[in-house]
Amino acid sequence: MRLSLGDARELVIRSMRVVGHDEHDAGVIADHLMDCELRGVDYGGLARALSVVERIRKRPEGRRPISVVRETPVSVMLDGGDQAGYLVGHRATRLGIGKAEAAGFAVAGVTNTWFTGMFAHYMEMATSRGLIAMAAGSSDWRVAPSGSAEGRFGTNPVAFGFPSDGDPIIMDTALSSVMVSEATLAARLDRKLDEGKAYGPDGQPTRDPTEALAGAFTVWGGHKGSALGVMIQLFGLLAGGAVRPDPLSDCSLFLMFMRPDLLVGEAELRRNVSAYADALRQAAPIDAARPPRMPFDRSAAERRARLADGHVEVADHVVERLRTIAAGGT
Amino acid sequence: MRLSLGDARELVIRSMRVVGHDEHDAGVIADHLMDCELRGVDYGGLARALSVVERIRKRPEGRRPISVVRETPVSVMLDGGDQAGYLVGHRATRLGIGKAEAAGFAVAGVTNTWFTGMFAHYMEMATSRGLIAMAAGSSDWRVAPSGSAEGRFGTNPVAFGFPSDGDPIIMDTALSSVMVSEATLAARLDRKLDEGKAYGPDGQPTRDPTEALAGAFTVWGGHKGSALGVMIQLFGLLAGGAVRPDPLSDCSLFLMFMRPDLLVGEAELRRNVSAYADALRQAAPIDAARPPRMPFDRSAAERRARLADGHVEVADHVVERLRTIAAGGT
Repeated sequence: MRLSLGDARELVIRSMRVVGHDEHDAGVIADHLMDCELRGVDYGGLARALSVVERIRKRPEGRRPISVVRETPVSVMLDGGDQAGYLVGHRATRLGIGKAEAAGFAVAGVTNTWFTGMFAHYMEMATSRGLIAMAAGSSDWRVAPSGSAEGRFGTNPVAFGFPSDGDPIIMDTALSSVMVSEATLAARLDRKLDEGKAYGPDGQPTRDPTEALAGAFTVWGGHKGSALGVMIQLFGLLAGGAVRPDPLSDCSLFLMFMRPDLLVGEAELRRNVSAYADALRQAAPIDAARPPRMPFDRSAAERRARLADGHVEVADHVVERLRTIAAGGT
Repeated sequence: MRLSLGDARELVIRSMRVVGHDEHDAGVIADHLMDCELRGVDYGGLARALSVVERIRKRPEGRRPISVVRETPVSVMLDGGDQAGYLVGHRATRLGIGKAEAAGFAVAGVTNTWFTGMFAHYMEMATSRGLIAMAAGSSDWRVAPSGSAEGRFGTNPVAFGFPSDGDPIIMDTALSSVMVSEATLAARLDRKLDEGKAYGPDGQPTRDPTEALAGAFTVWGGHKGSALGVMIQLFGLLAGGAVRPDPLSDCSLFLMFMRPDLLVGEAELRRNVSAYADALRQAAPIDAARPPRMPFDRSAAERRARLADGHVEVADHVVERLRTIAAGGT
């Protein structure tokens, strides 16, 4: 159903308050999920609020404040305290940006968290300050490496962000051919996965999202994509993650932020990134209806359109469940 | 033909001396090309020495000493002086490692160079010192982005390296489905490229390596691989590269080095990386003859075997041409 942006955000905030978040934290989560909705990433939007509520109710006991476990002028390591990754990622990004603005560079590591969200959201926090950023997220063994049907790394999103004179250029992609949130939404809505996306726990190919969530997803990009997935898992170890992460509080997040003037001037970089982006968009298209695009072009256009419209379209089932939860139901 | 390791290295050194390199620089290039030969990357090995000689003879006038154009305690920007990338990459890596050992982190940018070589070679220089490293190389517009048959980025190798208790874990892959050196060797040996790897200058698919070198290669990994190729090109802009690089002195190189103890202890990281690598290698194989491998496993095994054998196998044509060059011929 169609919801105004204000109503959609308020629904998330009320649901997050019910499971023990204060007004500030509920707002941080709502901003993140609304950014997903605005960009058309429906499985990461309001539907995800349901998963947050379910996750907290499944293991309510472990939650403690986010804490700094190691810190230098150019790095910070956070224990996520079993809090939602939206909160921990946001905290790590703010700390990392502050350090990079002062020292030119910073890394942040985060572990003991879950649902780290859409990394483009953190990247944009950095590019809006003129920084270059990278994020690598690892999680429990849900994706099969090339040559096996057994999971050995997480869906492992990797993201890079660069500022330009206009919209930032942000790549944000998981290494798996399916996202957990996408499979969870498919299971919730009784949809099948596409062919070739997953193995069941028996090691056989499956299209059933529930089987896939108990087995392993495939990787995109064959053995090269698999190698990249492995390296992202190693960044998770660098961020303090376990060799075999806990499936419930499974996420590690590595973040890097850098001032361009370590190497070239910020104005020069922005100008060159914009000029390059224009040159790529002007490459002769193979299909005139689908010209080459820069990473983030689609997201930026979708978000502008929904912001202008003032509304988002959310599955009825999701809205009804959230209304029940916000009203104190289960 | 079969050459002893000493004879192969000597042949490269003599060829490099002929085109104006001193003994030290000729040794740096020879070590790099020999590392390629030892690891079975034949198109990057002795065959590449021929391309170095050709490139220098094609534009002999521009060469000047490598110079530092910007420097901070955590960064260095080099003008490659139109020198071979093997030399510039080696210099940037040594400087970056020194800075990272002192400050915890460093980046290096390099431009005005060509033939930046096999990035795993630079990664291993860093992992052997216990550092984590990343490299991103961009070059002239040889690879078509998703949706176009016109080149808009380089073959754009990207590499990551992590130390372990045993062999390092190093991923090093180009984003194009063919390397320039691979296509150049195919043209030299009159071989065809595989289907789907390239477009000719007319925008039509081609298997002819010469046509491909005048047109554009395809990318691996579809639109996700294309997005990664774009981001690597942006790292090239950060490293001082031009929006549209010169096809002859076309390469930019971004390098990053980091001490693990910014986030976790080095011993802990090495131990966890090794434990993870073992767990991945033990994942149940789909085909028992091809078990899952870690990135660098194949390279390390090939290198060990050739080092034990004491010889490499190099195409006759390549050896004969190099002997002519080393003897002062053309």
